[in-house]
Amino acid sequence: MSNPSHKKFASPAAFIGQEADGLISFGSGQPDLPPPSKIFDDLATKRLFKYGLIQGELELRQMLAADYPKSSADDFVITNGASEALDLTLRAIRQLHGRVKVLVCRPYYYSYPELIRLAGLTPVYTDLIDGHIDLTDFKKKIKDVKAVLINSPSNPTGRVELLDTLREVEAITAKLGVYVLSDEVYKDLIYVRENYLIKGPHVITINSFSKTYSMCGLRVGYLYARDPKILQQVIEIKTHSSMNTNILGQAMAIKAKDVDRRIIDHQTGIWEKRRDFIYNGLTAMGFDLWKPEGAFYVLPKIKHSAQVVSDLFYDHKVIVYDGAWFGAPDRIRLSYALETVKIKAGLERIGEYLKDKQDWLV
Amino acid sequence: MSNPSHKKFASPAAFIGQEADGLISFGSGQPDLPPPSKIFDDLATKRLFKYGLIQGELELRQMLAADYPKSSADDFVITNGASEALDLTLRAIRQLHGRVKVLVCRPYYYSYPELIRLAGLTPVYTDLIDGHIDLTDFKKKIKDVKAVLINSPSNPTGRVELLDTLREVEAITAKLGVYVLSDEVYKDLIYVRENYLIKGPHVITINSFSKTYSMCGLRVGYLYARDPKILQQVIEIKTHSSMNTNILGQAMAIKAKDVDRRIIDHQTGIWEKRRDFIYNGLTAMGFDLWKPEGAFYVLPKIKHSAQVVSDLFYDHKVIVYDGAWFGAPDRIRLSYALETVKIKAGLERIGEYLKDKQDWLV
Repeated sequence: MSNPSHKKFASPAAFIGQEADGLISFGSGQPDLPPPSKIFDDLATKRLFKYGLIQGELELRQMLAADYPKSSADDFVITNGASEALDLTLRAIRQLHGRVKVLVCRPYYYSYPELIRLAGLTPVYTDLIDGHIDLTDFKKKIKDVKAVLINSPSNPTGRVELLDTLREVEAITAKLGVYVLSDEVYKDLIYVRENYLIKGPHVITINSFSKTYSMCGLRVGYLYARDPKILQQVIEIKTHSSMNTNILGQAMAIKAKDVDRRIIDHQTGIWEKRRDFIYNGLTAMGFDLWKPEGAFYVLPKIKHSAQVVSDLFYDHKVIVYDGAWFGAPDRIRLSYALETVKIKAGLERIGEYLKDKQDWLV
Repeated sequence: MSNPSHKKFASPAAFIGQEADGLISFGSGQPDLPPPSKIFDDLATKRLFKYGLIQGELELRQMLAADYPKSSADDFVITNGASEALDLTLRAIRQLHGRVKVLVCRPYYYSYPELIRLAGLTPVYTDLIDGHIDLTDFKKKIKDVKAVLINSPSNPTGRVELLDTLREVEAITAKLGVYVLSDEVYKDLIYVRENYLIKGPHVITINSFSKTYSMCGLRVGYLYARDPKILQQVIEIKTHSSMNTNILGQAMAIKAKDVDRRIIDHQTGIWEKRRDFIYNGLTAMGFDLWKPEGAFYVLPKIKHSAQVVSDLFYDHKVIVYDGAWFGAPDRIRLSYALETVKIKAGLERIGEYLKDKQDWLV
């Protein structure tokens, strides 16, 4: 049944930059909405070309400090996207504590295990139940690790953790002295409640301007921590590994403070309509999936997911990602960061492909 | 004699971003010349905000391929400055070959040993003689390593290797299958000859737009290699650790192809005049130093270098770097990337400081 001429895809990286007439991509998670126009103003000045502070432009860190209660500009490091913030934090933990273990909620963002291994650390996993943390398993495994990675709202599950769960995570990790790497890049894309900032002496909040302000390609992220040893070690590593984050991107991120909050809220409304559209569409097609509470991903069940990814790409011009890349075999991930009319066309193509494969829907 | 209220500096990072009225900095190595105006044109377009290819924009890599004989766009990876190119290459070697040793010429760029250690590798050293590679020692130590770092023109020595030496390095490393990481970021700043591109099956050329085009803060560098395993591993790591290099910086680097070569050559003329000015000035003051053949650094001998760095900063408002940070104790590093009138004033202040310390000049 599988077409031998169809190349199997090993990771999402193979799809990045894929462009072809008529191709519909549920793959890469980047907003298709235009960035707010304020971001563009007054960019090119000569000042912007010199080295900046390794830690990041002071004005940008002050702006962030105004957003995070009781924080100061010193508590932030501006990075090449949330990716580098994660990488630097994990490398810092490796430098400070040796080859320790890091707990990861599964399904996970596909880079987590790789970044942990690259830093010389070891990932261990706790499986989510219905896309939420299983506190019984979490409490058991947290005793054996030095750090835990929390991602709420989650890529790829689209789920948002319960407030009580997050508060319990805070209490347990503070008591045990375990670092919490809280990846909150979708904090402004929650449908069910306001974002809850995980707090604590060993919390490192990872964030980004990419999703909120539709500026993924500029690679401006940051980390926020109250632990001076982690901050110092992160800055030390970044001094050698990449120096300052590109200051033109930072200049644009500084402009974000002038963006009317209503623009962001309006965008969230658009995401929510798309969420409903894709969730209802996939449910009607017979898929079993969790309803997204934030971010812009769905992770429906389907058998033979690697073949599905390959067939949809070659035969139906649709990009979806294999759940296996995210620790969720027999699922596929669809990003709904595209216009409703394209979502509709994409779902129709998927329906066409699946019409003689109803037993794959588990 | 040392003032106890003067804080000692542990690394160059402490000085980055230092600004004060009347401060003269021989510290950070970034051109003070303005970037060519072409770099600015037509920057802000919506297109530029989306994720780009992890490997880098195709147009930029094609432009580089046109500059490197027999290369193709596939042989390049665009990075967050030369720093990330080095970091990724070392991490790739760690992934491919385990905890191997890397040979470093000493004095070295201060990040080399740290990047090697951070990647989980071990630095070993060969001491330069008069700022040039000692082939006898090099041939002995190269047998025990998996990679060697070459930096010609060199930061901090300002020296350029002899062509015969570089050709012998090519022959030895090709025969032994040793990687050559050739950091050529000062390739367009050579006073004594054209740059010589080190070639070979295991050569990874590290370069940057920062120095040639005065755009340090934008962080656009690259690596060039003909070894597909290294390229693939570098891209795999970058997929997780930072994703695409900021595309706005890349768009500006693409503009570099429109920059008239005469502008670059004219700038080299300016550097050469400054080189003569600072070299003659320091020599007249009694310093023992190598004459720079490229880049924009001098590394004169002086005793008590840590105290000199501290005293000059606090008492004379002059920034110089401690040679010890570069593996050269009893020397200081001065960048002459500043106007001649400032170089003159800075040298006068150093002369004032040294007037009762002539015995420190060794």
